[in-house]
Amino acid sequence: MARTGRRPGATQTREKILEAARAQFSEKGYDGATIRGIAREAGVDPALVHHFFGAKDQVFIAAMRLPYDPGEVLRRIIADTRHDRAEAIVRFFLDVWEDPRTRAPMLALVRSAATQEQAATTVRGFMKDILFHHVAGELGIPALRAALVASQLFGMVLVRYVIQVEPLASAAPDEVIALYAPALRAVIEE
Amino acid sequence: MARTGRRPGATQTREKILEAARAQFSEKGYDGATIRGIAREAGVDPALVHHFFGAKDQVFIAAMRLPYDPGEVLRRIIADTRHDRAEAIVRFFLDVWEDPRTRAPMLALVRSAATQEQAATTVRGFMKDILFHHVAGELGIPALRAALVASQLFGMVLVRYVIQVEPLASAAPDEVIALYAPALRAVIEE
Repeated sequence: MARTGRRPGATQTREKILEAARAQFSEKGYDGATIRGIAREAGVDPALVHHFFGAKDQVFIAAMRLPYDPGEVLRRIIADTRHDRAEAIVRFFLDVWEDPRTRAPMLALVRSAATQEQAATTVRGFMKDILFHHVAGELGIPALRAALVASQLFGMVLVRYVIQVEPLASAAPDEVIALYAPALRAVIEE
Repeated sequence: MARTGRRPGATQTREKILEAARAQFSEKGYDGATIRGIAREAGVDPALVHHFFGAKDQVFIAAMRLPYDPGEVLRRIIADTRHDRAEAIVRFFLDVWEDPRTRAPMLALVRSAATQEQAATTVRGFMKDILFHHVAGELGIPALRAALVASQLFGMVLVRYVIQVEPLASAAPDEVIALYAPALRAVIEE
Protein backbone atom coordinates (compact mmCIF):
# COMPACT_ATOMS: atom_id res chain seq x y z
CA MET A 1 0.00 0.00 0.00
CA ALA A 2 1.37 3.37 -1.02
CA ARG A 3 2.29 5.62 1.90
CA THR A 4 0.37 8.50 0.38
CA GLY A 5 -0.18 10.19 3.76
CA ARG A 6 3.56 10.85 4.01
CA ARG A 7 4.20 11.79 0.41
CA PRO A 8 5.62 15.30 0.23
CA GLY A 9 2.80 17.68 -0.61
CA ALA A 10 -0.01 15.32 0.42
CA THR A 11 -1.16 17.67 3.18
CA GLN A 12 -1.23 20.59 0.80
CA THR A 13 -3.10 18.58 -1.83
CA ARG A 14 -5.63 17.47 0.79
CA GLU A 15 -6.17 21.09 1.85
CA LYS A 16 -6.50 22.21 -1.76
CA ILE A 17 -9.20 19.58 -2.32
CA LEU A 18 -11.08 20.64 0.83
CA GLU A 19 -10.94 24.27 -0.24
CA ALA A 20 -12.28 23.34 -3.67
CA ALA A 21 -14.97 21.22 -1.97
CA ARG A 22 -16.11 24.12 0.25
CA ALA A 23 -16.33 26.35 -2.82
CA GLN A 24 -18.29 23.75 -4.81
CA PHE A 25 -20.70 22.90 -1.97
CA SER A 26 -21.29 26.57 -1.33
CA GLU A 27 -21.79 27.38 -5.02
CA LYS A 28 -23.80 24.34 -6.18
CA GLY A 29 -25.24 22.97 -2.95
CA TYR A 30 -24.69 19.41 -1.75
CA ASP A 31 -26.80 17.82 -4.49
CA GLY A 32 -25.19 19.83 -7.27
CA ALA A 33 -21.57 19.32 -6.22
CA THR A 34 -19.71 16.32 -7.66
CA ILE A 35 -16.40 14.60 -6.91
CA ARG A 36 -15.49 15.31 -10.53
CA GLY A 37 -16.26 19.04 -10.17
CA ILE A 38 -14.34 19.29 -6.90
CA ALA A 39 -11.36 17.54 -8.48
CA ARG A 40 -11.46 19.86 -11.49
CA GLU A 41 -11.57 22.95 -9.23
CA ALA A 42 -8.66 21.59 -7.18
CA GLY A 43 -6.71 20.65 -10.32
CA VAL A 44 -6.36 16.99 -9.34
CA ASP A 45 -7.60 13.65 -10.61
CA PRO A 46 -11.07 12.58 -9.29
CA ALA A 47 -9.48 9.29 -8.17
CA LEU A 48 -7.28 11.25 -5.78
CA VAL A 49 -10.32 12.89 -4.13
CA HIS A 50 -11.84 9.45 -3.71
CA HIS A 51 -8.55 8.08 -2.41
CA PHE A 52 -8.22 10.78 0.25
CA PHE A 53 -11.85 10.96 1.41
CA GLY A 54 -14.15 8.35 -0.12
CA ALA A 55 -17.71 9.21 -1.15
CA LYS A 56 -19.25 12.70 -1.38
CA ASP A 57 -20.69 12.66 2.14
CA GLN A 58 -17.17 12.02 3.48
CA VAL A 59 -15.76 14.92 1.45
CA PHE A 60 -18.51 17.15 2.86
CA ILE A 61 -17.80 16.08 6.46
CA ALA A 62 -14.08 16.80 6.03
CA ALA A 63 -14.72 20.10 4.21
CA MET A 64 -17.15 21.32 6.90
CA ARG A 65 -14.77 20.08 9.63
CA LEU A 66 -17.55 18.03 11.21
CA PRO A 67 -16.25 15.94 14.07
CA TYR A 68 -17.72 12.60 13.03
CA ASP A 69 -19.27 10.86 10.08
CA PRO A 70 -22.55 8.97 9.76
CA GLY A 71 -20.80 5.65 9.15
CA GLU A 72 -19.04 6.06 12.50
CA VAL A 73 -22.35 7.01 14.16
CA LEU A 74 -24.03 3.90 12.78
CA ARG A 75 -21.20 1.64 13.89
CA ARG A 76 -21.43 3.03 17.42
CA ILE A 77 -25.23 2.80 17.56
CA ILE A 78 -25.29 -0.76 16.23
CA ALA A 79 -22.38 -1.73 18.52
CA ASP A 80 -24.21 -0.35 21.57
CA THR A 81 -25.93 -3.56 22.63
CA ARG A 82 -26.56 -2.31 26.18
CA HIS A 83 -29.21 0.16 25.01
CA ASP A 84 -31.97 0.05 22.43
CA ARG A 85 -31.57 2.03 19.21
CA ALA A 86 -33.56 5.05 20.35
CA GLU A 87 -31.52 5.42 23.52
CA ALA A 88 -28.24 4.76 21.69
CA ILE A 89 -29.07 7.52 19.18
CA VAL A 90 -29.86 10.13 21.88
CA ARG A 91 -26.84 9.05 23.92
CA PHE A 92 -24.44 9.31 20.99
CA PHE A 93 -25.90 12.65 19.98
CA LEU A 94 -25.54 14.16 23.46
CA ASP A 95 -21.99 12.76 23.80
CA VAL A 96 -20.93 14.65 20.71
CA TRP A 97 -22.72 17.88 21.64
CA GLU A 98 -21.54 17.92 25.24
CA ASP A 99 -17.95 18.22 24.01
CA PRO A 100 -17.29 21.92 23.24
CA ARG A 101 -14.63 21.05 20.63
CA THR A 102 -17.02 18.99 18.53
CA ARG A 103 -19.92 21.33 19.29
CA ALA A 104 -18.37 24.40 17.67
CA PRO A 105 -18.24 23.36 13.99
CA MET A 106 -21.70 21.79 14.12
CA LEU A 107 -23.15 24.86 15.78
CA ALA A 108 -21.69 26.99 12.99
CA LEU A 109 -23.34 24.74 10.41
CA VAL A 110 -26.76 24.78 12.15
CA ARG A 111 -26.61 28.57 12.53
CA SER A 112 -25.76 29.18 8.91
CA ALA A 113 -28.42 26.70 7.78
CA ALA A 114 -30.98 28.59 9.87
CA THR A 115 -30.23 31.93 8.26
CA GLN A 116 -28.62 31.54 4.84
CA GLU A 117 -30.58 30.03 1.99
CA GLN A 118 -27.41 28.71 0.34
CA ALA A 119 -26.26 26.99 3.54
CA ALA A 120 -29.77 25.58 4.03
CA THR A 121 -29.64 24.12 0.52
CA THR A 122 -26.30 22.50 1.28
CA VAL A 123 -27.39 21.04 4.62
CA ARG A 124 -30.69 19.90 3.08
CA GLY A 125 -28.89 17.84 0.42
CA PHE A 126 -26.46 16.40 2.96
CA MET A 127 -29.25 15.45 5.38
CA LYS A 128 -31.31 13.88 2.62
CA ASP A 129 -28.30 11.79 1.59
CA ILE A 130 -27.62 10.72 5.20
CA LEU A 131 -31.28 10.06 6.00
CA PHE A 132 -31.98 8.01 2.89
CA HIS A 133 -28.74 6.11 2.49
CA HIS A 134 -27.61 5.59 6.06
CA VAL A 135 -30.49 5.96 8.52
CA ALA A 136 -33.29 4.74 6.26
CA GLY A 137 -31.13 2.21 4.42
CA GLU A 138 -28.81 0.76 7.05
CA LEU A 139 -30.94 1.22 10.20
CA GLY A 140 -34.12 0.34 8.29
CA ILE A 141 -36.06 3.37 9.50
CA PRO A 142 -38.48 4.77 6.84
CA ALA A 143 -37.26 8.15 5.52
CA LEU A 144 -40.14 10.24 6.93
CA ARG A 145 -39.67 8.71 10.38
CA ALA A 146 -35.92 9.28 10.09
CA ALA A 147 -36.60 12.95 9.30
CA LEU A 148 -38.77 13.18 12.44
CA VAL A 149 -35.89 11.72 14.47
CA ALA A 150 -33.70 14.43 12.93
CA SER A 151 -36.33 17.03 13.95
CA GLN A 152 -36.16 15.91 17.55
CA LEU A 153 -32.37 15.96 17.62
CA PHE A 154 -32.06 19.35 15.89
CA GLY A 155 -34.69 20.76 18.21
CA MET A 156 -32.62 19.60 21.17
CA VAL A 157 -29.64 21.43 19.64
CA LEU A 158 -31.65 24.61 19.25
CA VAL A 159 -33.29 24.66 22.69
CA ARG A 160 -30.48 23.17 24.83
CA TYR A 161 -27.32 24.44 23.11
CA VAL A 162 -28.22 27.46 20.99
CA ILE A 163 -31.04 29.29 22.82
CA GLN A 164 -30.18 27.52 26.11
CA VAL A 165 -33.66 27.39 27.59
CA GLU A 166 -33.83 26.26 31.21
CA PRO A 167 -34.33 23.81 32.76
CA LEU A 168 -33.22 21.87 29.67
CA ALA A 169 -29.91 23.71 29.20
CA SER A 170 -28.61 22.63 32.63
CA ALA A 171 -30.26 19.21 32.90
CA ALA A 172 -27.88 16.25 33.32
CA PRO A 173 -27.35 14.26 30.08
CA ASP A 174 -28.62 11.04 31.71
CA GLU A 175 -31.87 12.71 32.72
CA VAL A 176 -32.34 14.11 29.22
CA ILE A 177 -31.62 10.70 27.68
CA ALA A 178 -34.12 8.97 29.99
CA LEU A 179 -36.88 11.43 29.08
CA TYR A 180 -36.13 11.86 25.37
CA ALA A 181 -35.34 8.27 24.28
CA PRO A 182 -39.01 7.19 24.57
CA ALA A 183 -39.93 10.06 22.22
CA LEU A 184 -37.47 8.87 19.56
CA ARG A 185 -38.65 5.31 20.12
CA ALA A 186 -42.26 6.40 19.46
CA VAL A 187 -41.23 7.74 16.03
CA ILE A 188 -38.88 4.89 15.10
CA GLU A 189 -41.18 2.01 15.94
CA GLU A 190 -44.21 1.29 13.86
CA MET B 1 -65.57 51.78 30.20
CA ALA B 2 -63.50 54.41 28.40
CA ARG B 3 -63.43 54.07 24.62
CA THR B 4 -59.64 54.29 24.60
CA GLY B 5 -59.36 52.35 21.34
CA ARG B 6 -61.05 55.21 19.50
CA ARG B 7 -59.39 58.06 21.32
CA PRO B 8 -57.51 60.23 18.83
CA GLY B 9 -53.85 59.26 18.91
CA ALA B 10 -54.42 55.82 20.46
CA THR B 11 -52.94 54.05 17.44
CA GLN B 12 -49.86 56.27 17.55
CA THR B 13 -49.49 55.73 21.31
CA ARG B 14 -49.80 51.97 20.82
CA GLU B 15 -47.12 52.03 18.13
CA LYS B 16 -44.86 54.19 20.31
CA ILE B 17 -45.18 51.66 23.13
CA LEU B 18 -44.40 48.74 20.82
CA GLU B 19 -41.35 50.55 19.46
CA ALA B 20 -40.16 51.21 23.02
CA ALA B 21 -40.84 47.56 23.88
CA ARG B 22 -38.76 46.30 20.94
CA ALA B 23 -35.91 48.57 22.03
CA GLN B 24 -36.13 47.43 25.66
CA PHE B 25 -36.40 43.70 24.83
CA SER B 26 -33.49 44.00 22.44
CA GLU B 27 -31.36 45.99 24.91
CA LYS B 28 -32.16 44.20 28.18
CA GLY B 29 -33.50 40.84 27.04
CA TYR B 30 -36.90 39.49 28.01
CA ASP B 31 -36.03 38.97 31.67
CA GLY B 32 -34.46 42.42 32.08
CA ALA B 33 -37.20 44.40 30.36
CA THR B 34 -40.05 45.73 32.52
CA ILE B 35 -43.44 47.31 31.85
CA ARG B 36 -42.19 50.31 33.84
CA GLY B 37 -39.03 50.64 31.70
CA ILE B 38 -41.00 50.29 28.46
CA ALA B 39 -43.47 52.94 29.65
CA ARG B 40 -40.63 55.29 30.59
CA GLU B 41 -38.98 54.86 27.17
CA ALA B 42 -42.33 55.49 25.44
CA GLY B 43 -43.06 58.49 27.70
CA VAL B 44 -46.38 57.08 28.92
CA ASP B 45 -47.81 55.84 32.20
CA PRO B 46 -47.16 52.13 32.99
CA ALA B 47 -50.91 51.69 33.52
CA LEU B 48 -51.44 52.59 29.87
CA VAL B 49 -49.05 49.83 28.71
CA HIS B 50 -50.97 47.38 30.87
CA HIS B 51 -54.28 48.73 29.57
CA PHE B 52 -53.27 48.27 25.93
CA PHE B 53 -51.51 44.91 26.18
CA GLY B 54 -51.73 43.24 29.59
CA ALA B 55 -48.76 41.35 31.06
CA LYS B 56 -45.17 41.38 29.77
CA ASP B 57 -45.57 38.26 27.63
CA GLN B 58 -48.46 39.96 25.81
CA VAL B 59 -46.35 43.07 25.20
CA PHE B 60 -43.59 40.85 23.78
CA ILE B 61 -46.00 39.01 21.47
CA ALA B 62 -47.37 42.31 20.15
CA ALA B 63 -43.90 43.86 19.85
CA MET B 64 -42.53 40.86 17.93
CA ARG B 65 -45.71 40.74 15.82
CA LEU B 66 -46.23 37.07 16.72
CA PRO B 67 -49.50 35.79 15.31
CA TYR B 68 -50.89 34.22 18.47
CA ASP B 69 -50.36 34.19 22.20
CA PRO B 70 -49.88 31.30 24.60
CA GLY B 71 -53.18 31.93 26.35
CA GLU B 72 -54.96 31.49 23.04
CA VAL B 73 -52.94 28.34 22.33
CA LEU B 74 -53.91 26.88 25.68
CA ARG B 75 -57.58 27.69 25.21
CA ARG B 76 -57.55 25.95 21.84
CA ILE B 77 -55.66 22.90 23.09
CA ILE B 78 -57.89 22.49 26.14
CA ALA B 79 -61.01 23.10 24.03
CA ASP B 80 -59.95 20.42 21.53
CA THR B 81 -61.77 17.49 23.09
CA ARG B 82 -61.65 15.41 19.93
CA HIS B 83 -57.91 14.79 20.28
CA ASP B 84 -55.59 14.12 23.21
CA ARG B 85 -53.26 16.88 24.39
CA ALA B 86 -50.21 15.66 22.45
CA GLU B 87 -52.13 15.53 19.19
CA ALA B 88 -53.86 18.87 19.87
CA ILE B 89 -50.46 20.53 20.46
CA VAL B 90 -48.92 19.21 17.21
CA ARG B 91 -52.12 20.02 15.29
CA PHE B 92 -52.28 23.58 16.57
CA PHE B 93 -48.58 24.10 15.91
CA LEU B 94 -48.78 22.85 12.31
CA ASP B 95 -51.93 24.92 11.67
CA VAL B 96 -50.06 28.08 12.58
CA TRP B 97 -46.90 27.20 10.66
CA GLU B 98 -48.73 26.05 7.52
CA ASP B 99 -50.08 29.59 7.09
CA PRO B 100 -47.37 31.66 5.35
CA ARG B 101 -48.67 34.91 6.93
CA THR B 102 -48.21 33.66 10.47
CA ARG B 103 -45.06 31.74 9.56
CA ALA B 104 -43.03 34.78 8.49
CA PRO B 105 -42.68 36.65 11.82
CA MET B 106 -42.00 33.45 13.76
CA LEU B 107 -39.41 32.35 11.25
CA ALA B 108 -37.67 35.71 11.66
CA LEU B 109 -37.60 35.21 15.43
CA VAL B 110 -36.25 31.64 15.22
CA ARG B 111 -33.58 32.72 12.74
CA SER B 112 -32.39 35.61 14.85
CA ALA B 113 -32.41 33.45 18.00
CA ALA B 114 -30.24 30.90 16.18
CA THR B 115 -27.58 33.43 15.25
CA GLN B 116 -27.63 36.48 17.54
CA GLU B 117 -26.78 36.16 21.20
CA GLN B 118 -29.01 39.09 22.14
CA ALA B 119 -32.00 37.62 20.31
CA ALA B 120 -31.28 34.24 21.90
CA THR B 121 -31.33 35.87 25.35
CA THR B 122 -34.67 37.47 24.57
CA VAL B 123 -36.28 34.29 23.23
CA ARG B 124 -34.81 32.31 26.15
CA GLY B 125 -36.51 34.56 28.72
CA PHE B 126 -39.79 34.52 26.81
CA MET B 127 -39.76 30.73 26.45
CA LYS B 128 -38.90 30.25 30.12
CA ASP B 129 -41.84 32.46 31.07
CA ILE B 130 -44.22 30.60 28.73
CA LEU B 131 -42.95 27.15 29.70
CA PHE B 132 -43.08 27.74 33.45
CA HIS B 133 -46.21 29.84 33.74
CA HIS B 134 -48.42 28.52 30.98
CA VAL B 135 -47.36 25.04 29.87
CA ALA B 136 -45.99 23.79 33.18
CA GLY B 137 -48.51 25.67 35.31
CA GLU B 138 -51.75 25.50 33.35
CA LEU B 139 -51.26 22.24 31.43
CA GLY B 140 -49.54 20.62 34.42
CA ILE B 141 -46.53 19.40 32.43
CA PRO B 142 -43.24 19.50 34.44
CA ALA B 143 -40.90 22.22 33.15
CA LEU B 144 -38.17 19.89 31.85
CA ARG B 145 -40.72 17.84 29.94
CA ALA B 146 -42.28 21.06 28.63
CA ALA B 147 -38.84 22.13 27.38
CA LEU B 148 -38.47 18.79 25.58
CA VAL B 149 -41.86 19.37 23.90
CA ALA B 150 -40.52 22.77 22.84
CA SER B 151 -37.43 20.97 21.44
CA GLN B 152 -39.63 18.69 19.38
CA LEU B 153 -41.68 21.59 17.99
CA PHE B 154 -38.69 23.83 17.26
CA GLY B 155 -36.92 20.91 15.60
CA MET B 156 -39.94 20.46 13.34
CA VAL B 157 -39.70 24.17 12.45
CA LEU B 158 -36.01 23.83 11.62
CA VAL B 159 -36.21 20.63 9.55
CA ARG B 160 -39.60 21.10 7.85
CA TYR B 161 -39.84 24.88 7.36
CA VAL B 162 -36.32 26.34 7.57
CA ILE B 163 -33.97 23.72 6.07
CA GLN B 164 -36.87 21.98 4.31
CA VAL B 165 -35.52 18.43 4.43
CA GLU B 166 -37.46 15.89 2.36
CA PRO B 167 -39.59 13.85 2.75
CA LEU B 168 -40.68 15.87 5.83
CA ALA B 169 -40.94 19.23 4.05
CA SER B 170 -43.62 17.96 1.63
CA ALA B 171 -45.41 15.48 3.90
CA ALA B 172 -49.13 16.13 4.47
CA PRO B 173 -49.88 17.75 7.86
CA ASP B 174 -52.17 14.87 8.87
CA GLU B 175 -49.42 12.33 8.22
CA VAL B 176 -46.93 14.40 10.24
CA ILE B 177 -49.43 14.75 13.10
CA ALA B 178 -50.13 11.01 13.14
CA LEU B 179 -46.42 10.17 13.34
CA TYR B 180 -45.27 12.98 15.65
CA ALA B 181 -48.07 13.09 18.26
CA PRO B 182 -46.93 9.78 19.84
CA ALA B 183 -43.45 11.30 20.28
CA LEU B 184 -44.86 14.31 22.17
CA ARG B 185 -47.10 11.98 24.16
CA ALA B 186 -44.03 9.96 25.22
CA VAL B 187 -42.46 13.12 26.67
CA ILE B 188 -45.63 14.55 28.24
CA GLU B 189 -46.81 11.41 29.98
CA GLU B 190 -44.95 10.06 32.95
